[in-house]
Amino acid sequence: MRFGHFDDERREYVIHRPDTPHPWINYLGSEDFVGLISNTGGGYAFYRDARLRRLTRYRYNDVPVDENGRYIYLRDNKNGEYWSPSWQPTRRRLEGYSCRHGLGYTVIGSTHAGIEAETTYFVPLDEALEIWSMRITNRRTAPAALSLFSAVEFCFWNALDDATNFQRNLNIGEVAVEAGVIVHKTEYRERRDHFATFACSEPLAGFETQRDAFLGAYRGWSEPLAVERGATTDTIGVGGCPVGVHHVRLDLRAGESKRVIFVLGYHENPAAESGGATLDAGVVRKTIRRYFQPDVVDEALNRLRDAWDRRLSALQVRTPEPDVDRMVNTWTPYQCAVAFSVSRSASRYESGIGRGIGFRDANQDLLGCVHMMPDRARARILDLASAQLVSGGAYHQYQPLTRRGNDEIGSGFNDDPLWLILSAAAYIKETGDWEVLEERVAYGDEPRTATLYEHLVRAADYTLARLGPHGLPLIGRADWNDCLNLNSHSMDPDEPFQTAPVRDGGTAESVFIAGLFCLAGEELEGIASRIGDGTTASRLRSAVVGMRTAVAEHGWDGGWFLRAYDARGDKLGSRENDEGRIFVEPQGICPMAGIGIEDGKADTALDAVGRELLTDHGILLLQPAYTTYRLNLGEISSYPPGYKENGSVFCHTNPWVVIAACRLGRAEEAWDYALRINPARREEISEVHECEPYVYAQTIVGRDAEDHGRARNSWLTGTASWAYVATTQWILGIRPTFDGLEIDPCVPAGVREYRVSRRFRGATYDILIENPDGATGGVRKIRIDGERFDGSVLPVFEDGKTHDVTVTLGGPS
Amino acid sequence: MRFGHFDDERREYVIHRPDTPHPWINYLGSEDFVGLISNTGGGYAFYRDARLRRLTRYRYNDVPVDENGRYIYLRDNKNGEYWSPSWQPTRRRLEGYSCRHGLGYTVIGSTHAGIEAETTYFVPLDEALEIWSMRITNRRTAPAALSLFSAVEFCFWNALDDATNFQRNLNIGEVAVEAGVIVHKTEYRERRDHFATFACSEPLAGFETQRDAFLGAYRGWSEPLAVERGATTDTIGVGGCPVGVHHVRLDLRAGESKRVIFVLGYHENPAAESGGATLDAGVVRKTIRRYFQPDVVDEALNRLRDAWDRRLSALQVRTPEPDVDRMVNTWTPYQCAVAFSVSRSASRYESGIGRGIGFRDANQDLLGCVHMMPDRARARILDLASAQLVSGGAYHQYQPLTRRGNDEIGSGFNDDPLWLILSAAAYIKETGDWEVLEERVAYGDEPRTATLYEHLVRAADYTLARLGPHGLPLIGRADWNDCLNLNSHSMDPDEPFQTAPVRDGGTAESVFIAGLFCLAGEELEGIASRIGDGTTASRLRSAVVGMRTAVAEHGWDGGWFLRAYDARGDKLGSRENDEGRIFVEPQGICPMAGIGIEDGKADTALDAVGRELLTDHGILLLQPAYTTYRLNLGEISSYPPGYKENGSVFCHTNPWVVIAACRLGRAEEAWDYALRINPARREEISEVHECEPYVYAQTIVGRDAEDHGRARNSWLTGTASWAYVATTQWILGIRPTFDGLEIDPCVPAGVREYRVSRRFRGATYDILIENPDGATGGVRKIRIDGERFDGSVLPVFEDGKTHDVTVTLGGPS
Repeated sequence: MRFGHFDDERREYVIHRPDTPHPWINYLGSEDFVGLISNTGGGYAFYRDARLRRLTRYRYNDVPVDENGRYIYLRDNKNGEYWSPSWQPTRRRLEGYSCRHGLGYTVIGSTHAGIEAETTYFVPLDEALEIWSMRITNRRTAPAALSLFSAVEFCFWNALDDATNFQRNLNIGEVAVEAGVIVHKTEYRERRDHFATFACSEPLAGFETQRDAFLGAYRGWSEPLAVERGATTDTIGVGGCPVGVHHVRLDLRAGESKRVIFVLGYHENPAAESGGATLDAGVVRKTIRRYFQPDVVDEALNRLRDAWDRRLSALQVRTPEPDVDRMVNTWTPYQCAVAFSVSRSASRYESGIGRGIGFRDANQDLLGCVHMMPDRARARILDLASAQLVSGGAYHQYQPLTRRGNDEIGSGFNDDPLWLILSAAAYIKETGDWEVLEERVAYGDEPRTATLYEHLVRAADYTLARLGPHGLPLIGRADWNDCLNLNSHSMDPDEPFQTAPVRDGGTAESVFIAGLFCLAGEELEGIASRIGDGTTASRLRSAVVGMRTAVAEHGWDGGWFLRAYDARGDKLGSRENDEGRIFVEPQGICPMAGIGIEDGKADTALDAVGRELLTDHGILLLQPAYTTYRLNLGEISSYPPGYKENGSVFCHTNPWVVIAACRLGRAEEAWDYALRINPARREEISEVHECEPYVYAQTIVGRDAEDHGRARNSWLTGTASWAYVATTQWILGIRPTFDGLEIDPCVPAGVREYRVSRRFRGATYDILIENPDGATGGVRKIRIDGERFDGSVLPVFEDGKTHDVTVTLGGPS
Repeated sequence: MRFGHFDDERREYVIHRPDTPHPWINYLGSEDFVGLISNTGGGYAFYRDARLRRLTRYRYNDVPVDENGRYIYLRDNKNGEYWSPSWQPTRRRLEGYSCRHGLGYTVIGSTHAGIEAETTYFVPLDEALEIWSMRITNRRTAPAALSLFSAVEFCFWNALDDATNFQRNLNIGEVAVEAGVIVHKTEYRERRDHFATFACSEPLAGFETQRDAFLGAYRGWSEPLAVERGATTDTIGVGGCPVGVHHVRLDLRAGESKRVIFVLGYHENPAAESGGATLDAGVVRKTIRRYFQPDVVDEALNRLRDAWDRRLSALQVRTPEPDVDRMVNTWTPYQCAVAFSVSRSASRYESGIGRGIGFRDANQDLLGCVHMMPDRARARILDLASAQLVSGGAYHQYQPLTRRGNDEIGSGFNDDPLWLILSAAAYIKETGDWEVLEERVAYGDEPRTATLYEHLVRAADYTLARLGPHGLPLIGRADWNDCLNLNSHSMDPDEPFQTAPVRDGGTAESVFIAGLFCLAGEELEGIASRIGDGTTASRLRSAVVGMRTAVAEHGWDGGWFLRAYDARGDKLGSRENDEGRIFVEPQGICPMAGIGIEDGKADTALDAVGRELLTDHGILLLQPAYTTYRLNLGEISSYPPGYKENGSVFCHTNPWVVIAACRLGRAEEAWDYALRINPARREEISEVHECEPYVYAQTIVGRDAEDHGRARNSWLTGTASWAYVATTQWILGIRPTFDGLEIDPCVPAGVREYRVSRRFRGATYDILIENPDGATGGVRKIRIDGERFDGSVLPVFEDGKTHDVTVTLGGPS
């Protein structure tokens, strides 16, 4: 069952009814100012940091779900009837409801009693504000006398404090109304240089700044007293809960249409610049007023759309499979950009309070958008390097606002530093910017700086300095799977699994990190050898060889790769186990890193994946799921069977298997596996999947549970980046390398032709892949601009031109 | 305007309408199992620790306010109409609504469409469960076919994690229904040995365990789908949000009445005892079933009421002023007991997440209930001593469940340790239990133990080792007023004021601590000399003398006592200041400690209080309020003028002034000041006061703000204890001393007679105070059991008998 459709032309997902299985959200803005918005107007906005600079209040896991948002009420002043054109919060019946989630904007429209209203929400490029641009049209045959009320509830900036410290917070609220602009200035000019504004383009019939005055006692957002009676109290409250409510009267002739524009903004007035003033600072007022002009708003929206078109034009494909095309051309890179921007901080499942920028997460998110936003990727890589420690390890997370490592969670997640090598390599492959390696960056625990290259070498050495009894890398606190806690055995429910003391000497080993090391080690070897550091290159080469041997000797279980050794030296992910006999991660990462390709282990492992882990809804993380809590494994076994790390389809891992399959030439499998978790492909079972059909979810309930197929934790997942890499670089086979764009498809025999347009290092490659004989890979022939080209790595043109590339599959002719 | 009335006979406050200005709450249970309940059934339950062991979910600062609670829906199965007998959450119109908040129980009753329902909520003594005992009566002339639905939403134990960590929590929920009992067992037998149960005495027509199944998509508690259609789905969900919902069908003949009993419980099955079983453990099931019997429930309620009557009988008064009597006889000691039990952790304003047991708070809370619960007071004193550090300082807070000091807030609040002396002295005065001083207790930062007496001496020495340039005590992080941050100058809004680094060497000095030191020093001197430690006694005596001299020389501003010196050595609370010229704290504590009594300074200070700080709503904390943020003062100046520490009536301080007035014989003032903040006296302005009229609030907005008179942060405030001490020990003058019960009234001339019944050290003193000549103090004559008694300290009888004491006021005859 579908709740909407893809409008591929406009790059929008169009939702047809407000009561989707879950609120289906979108992001407004993806740099400094970020808003989350659901298909019914729910959500909130923050500046840079969802925990420390939250503009508007949102109640997670609320009842009714997804109340609190960007609300508009329309009231018919003839009969007092009122409704919300975005359905929430009144939930009155609407005609012609639609929500169009686009790239960085959302349009929600509907009609009620002959009044049509359509609102476009977006964050203009390079602004710290969001626009609600509304068009109201009277479709009646008679004039309409309407009142329009806007409503946001302000947050006291620190979202955690806002939600817990009431004995203080209910006493500090301060607002002002200056020239019709509602200013939320709690703590402004105390320790804060920032404030929020909420403005309306139209003359006000009134305003409200206190929630309780707007709603009335014991009322909800669905029935505000001020809306019911058609009038505000126009009071400036102190303390309590500040809100921004505008009241505008609209008298519309039959057929008349009117634009009303709201601007919700964040502003900083550094103390030196403007004493105690807020709006008087001029610049603020001017910015707001500019966006009161419809043509300025329209132009800003067009610029936003153009920007996205430009970004996405870096890679566009046309294949026989529309669900592949719409994900690759629009939604997956968009999701990657959002995840890159907010890491795992703020979604419907991440409260914005718990986590900042994850080290491992951010490096992976970058893989899917480095081609669209190389400058931001470069800056992020250097930020991440500065969260690395002198030991070579890394802070597991850091706060986006302060860029300070998060001491609470600390470090010791032993895979963390290796991901930095992958992201740096991806950046260099994309851009050819070798100079980035010379950038000097401090360590997270020491002010002394080192070049990025030194950081990367230190990352690799961190693993090599931490090998266990089987010569495999020590897992530390975790190795990508944060819930596999093999060294820290938590017995106290009041302590987080991830920060429980490491109790057993920390000798557990990870086959996953072994694979990751080989993958990253080869990348770094490639870098080292190209910059002339032969010593390091050869040192890494032999380290990788040694690691491969260790995996072959101690990481192979006969039918698949082992997952790990626990702190007692017992195997995990082995036929010796009663539960958790096979894990997917090493079956993906080891072949990805070239382990077992030559000796057949990788093929055997992939056979096992198909036999043991594959379901209609994707590949399971492990089987059989754990049915009891196991102290030696930690959080993974605390989930009910089939959920999350305990045997769900943990989507992040599926593209790894896809890449592994491509490395082995198992093209049909790769294509099939990629499609099983493709959210667009799952659109038709939205009532089962429940999450948005336009973005990947982190987890889909596994077959050990009754609600097998139900997705959760959509949006902020490394799945997007890896799915993008797997599909574009490995299946479609257009892969940046240090030396140029490699062509190496691995597609099903039935794919007889596809096109890829790729902007790469200053030129555009218009690539047509022909597969006349139904091959599944192998490049027989390449022509560039009509000329025959030998080799599979396209030259770097850097000439600003478009080059026609024709590839014929089927092996060398 | 009143919203209810006091039923003094039954010790109940009876609320007449559900829409009180704020939800007016009560506490069920005050030992291990604690519930908060509002007058419309809102609230939640926890076991010992509101942060770490929360049974049911509650959304603070929610919209609509105070949704989430102990909900019951009644549905007329003939027409499908449904309502909530406690008003929330449906908020349908009710007839005859009343809420009776009693001591440890609440009864909410109403009638709708001829169906009368009354529910009594309470926690039986010594049980970790709460009862909802409901009587439903059909007052119609025809039979009624009804459905009854109960509803609680379970919390995943750790309330902070529950409210922030959705990417995990929405995947871990586990419930079971065993023999009709809904068991919430998320994480049970993982790291938890505990689970919750929700049971109903009647055969079930159905049940619901998933919130979304009960409510339906996008619905609130006010319109659950299951109630609307009159049927549950009877599914056992995994993940999501577990709820407990019973569906019971009731067919009542005209006039028929029926009892239905719900039991919500917390249970622990230590691993050793019962494998993985929950209810099979026998004891759990048996306990639940026992409370299905109405007579068992009625008896348990009677036992609870008897227990409170017994506790309160330790001190009962009859004065000419009913508002004094009802507060002293019932509500203030009850509030003290609640505050003693939960410290500042859980109220409508304290989310249960931010703070555990406050060191300073708990010592003060004890003062108001040590006479009712000496055993618990003794145990608490030893707990508190174990939060003391080797330095003599103390952890500012500790977590009630773990008894571990809270590292986040740390120590360095330099008044903290002195309060331990006051509480220990109060305990010994009450009980004569000198042996408590020999109890050995470890330090919070070292396992080595010391006697309680050694802890106390170390507390006093802590102050003496930290004197500043004027010989006054260094303030450290704060000195009772947590918002006066004179050494830690916070410029970063993302850091709490209280934990900002101490930036200026920490040289700020506190006149308040000087006064407190004199008060505590004299108490400890009294202890030392009585246990034969003459050396310490005389050392303390001279230290107190020295401190008095320092206050006289450097703590006096001419018209009142200074408040402090800031880190630069500038005066605070001085006529030299433009704002914050006078603070109330030193005007209270210094005279309380005997400072300035002889030389007239104390009288002058109290004159200033009356002139500068007194309002109709009580005595302000300071004047004039700060109008701008001042870095050298900290949080205090971050509040809007008139709010909280910035010039509200911060009620905690008012009884100090009352005691000071009594020490000076200013009887009329003492009586007047006590009445101004007496919540019962303020009942008639409930629409202004807004908080409960039966308990003290922490703060009443001051005259610098428009809503002057509005109370906030009711229930958990040291005001209760100090108001109780001030009224009973200083105004009414029945004061425990180390040597016996002292009689020393200080009452207005118009009080011609009053009675006090006091249980003290194993005997009961039935005291009649006669004031034939309209004196305001001075004992002219005492007769005990008809015999003339010389002196004002009554003998300790310890004979289990009642002794008649007649006191005649007016100075020695």
